[in-house]
Amino acid sequence: MPVTIYHVNERSMSHDYVISVDLGGTNLRVGAVRDDGLIEEREKRSSEAKATTSEILQNIEEAIRTIVRRLEEKQKTIRGITLGFPGIVDSEKGIVYQSPHFPDWKNLVFVDYFRKKFPWPIKASNDANLAALGESWLGAGKGLKNFVMMTLGTGIGGGIMIDGKIFHGDHGFAGEIGHIVIEAEGHECPCGSRGCLEMYVSTLGIRKLIETADDVLRKEQLLERVGGNLDKITVQALYELAREGDILAHSTFKKMGYYLGIGLATLVNTLGIENFVIGGGISEAWDFFVEVAKKELAARTYSETARYVKLLKAQLGDDAGLIGGARF
Amino acid sequence: MPVTIYHVNERSMSHDYVISVDLGGTNLRVGAVRDDGLIEEREKRSSEAKATTSEILQNIEEAIRTIVRRLEEKQKTIRGITLGFPGIVDSEKGIVYQSPHFPDWKNLVFVDYFRKKFPWPIKASNDANLAALGESWLGAGKGLKNFVMMTLGTGIGGGIMIDGKIFHGDHGFAGEIGHIVIEAEGHECPCGSRGCLEMYVSTLGIRKLIETADDVLRKEQLLERVGGNLDKITVQALYELAREGDILAHSTFKKMGYYLGIGLATLVNTLGIENFVIGGGISEAWDFFVEVAKKELAARTYSETARYVKLLKAQLGDDAGLIGGARF
Repeated sequence: MPVTIYHVNERSMSHDYVISVDLGGTNLRVGAVRDDGLIEEREKRSSEAKATTSEILQNIEEAIRTIVRRLEEKQKTIRGITLGFPGIVDSEKGIVYQSPHFPDWKNLVFVDYFRKKFPWPIKASNDANLAALGESWLGAGKGLKNFVMMTLGTGIGGGIMIDGKIFHGDHGFAGEIGHIVIEAEGHECPCGSRGCLEMYVSTLGIRKLIETADDVLRKEQLLERVGGNLDKITVQALYELAREGDILAHSTFKKMGYYLGIGLATLVNTLGIENFVIGGGISEAWDFFVEVAKKELAARTYSETARYVKLLKAQLGDDAGLIGGARF
Repeated sequence: MPVTIYHVNERSMSHDYVISVDLGGTNLRVGAVRDDGLIEEREKRSSEAKATTSEILQNIEEAIRTIVRRLEEKQKTIRGITLGFPGIVDSEKGIVYQSPHFPDWKNLVFVDYFRKKFPWPIKASNDANLAALGESWLGAGKGLKNFVMMTLGTGIGGGIMIDGKIFHGDHGFAGEIGHIVIEAEGHECPCGSRGCLEMYVSTLGIRKLIETADDVLRKEQLLERVGGNLDKITVQALYELAREGDILAHSTFKKMGYYLGIGLATLVNTLGIENFVIGGGISEAWDFFVEVAKKELAARTYSETARYVKLLKAQLGDDAGLIGGARF
């Protein structure tokens, strides 16, 4: 899915590089990103959520050193390191306050740790915000003054772009759009709330939608086909089933689209922002949910507003965060 | 409730004036606002929603002329006219696209009408946005870089202040926070959506909460005491009942607080903005709903975020819009 936008046949001797770190709940990805956005070196490791914080830090450090070595061998200039973390990140102070994937993290000053290890300027930000920055620079958000980035993965990541810059709110907490409440007394969310958008529109949400489906027979069939375990069902597996014509897989994506439309309506009515860039693994199933989302959104916004709204598929795939990190 | 902030005993000869118009669903209010925010002349008329558009325009025009005459008699300098309208207003183009109180209005270019009648610069904006500007200048929002203004009246008005300026979104539609969806399949809203915050937190919302209350006996008693008609129950009447200890009046304000907390949680999680200025008639019943709202809000936001959030009671009352109009 990542679109090749760059001409790589030019001489790259004159380029500077940023080392960009994207720590997710499943993978740690580190890249050497050229000043025109090309990712020239990559390092991918598993990011085991059960590892201790110091193991995670060491893992990141080693991955960065690997990339540094490769760049130094080629005599490249490194201009800085950007760390992208899931959760509540204060990018001015370089503190990760809380992270849904790493419950042990509380007020960790990551930036200081890495500043002691490396000689380059080091910055940190929320991963979804960096993805928004990447899409804004070279992807679906290119040329848009304002847009909201939604990353539909295990949960929902969000980044709000206003006047070409990430909007952070008062303390860097803006963009937690997965925790828009769409059902006052809906499914419990690990965040402590109920009825959060993320509990309906994400991999976790899709599992809940299947779990609570009325059609018991089709549910059993579907679970059998994906190995019997609801907790392990992936969007990829559901997507394959939907392509094969499975009715429950279809209706699950449609339900997800319905809830997505509701969440988008709240965003449109609140922010008056009209462009939404939707990425993450679930966006692969675009055609199965987007029409329902658009319909629901239109029914829940003023007609004058609705006609401007555009849902755009993200273009940079998994690379959005790394590319955004370089831009940041 | 309006707080006197100004020293009016100074000589006002040197002040300039803006004529500020605040058109609501019930009242048309026009004021001559001094450049320090003091409202020196006032004109109040009823704004009958059933009047034709040209009758409404004429009514506004006459009210403005009355104020102009009074200012000219005192040889005051008029610098401009600001028109505050409910609904979807494009303040750059001076167009009112849609208005909940005046369903006939579609894409009306009000500004042009008044430009032909008066020699001064004329601007238009959404009434809730102007109220936010007023509170930002001289009220509860003074000194706050970012805040959200909520006006709890017949419906909910909203204004989002970012970096000391009203945030308008792409086409001036931002701040329609009454249409945050908090119940996917909740009460039908006249906007076409369902489960809008406004259907739970506003005069309309309060009526629905009483209508759907389980306690039939208390409901009948309460309706008897306010004249038997649910559609005419006012917040003022409910407030009086709550003060007298009526249990259903109490529980209605608490339920409203619960839903308000949910709406605020969506705003905090999305915008990362921590200060909320809450005005409108319902804010008079502050003590009956605010603790429940705070509790619900805290349960639905990250603890790191929740500790920063402040709910502030608006300070300028009905004058916020007029004062904000002058600032605008």
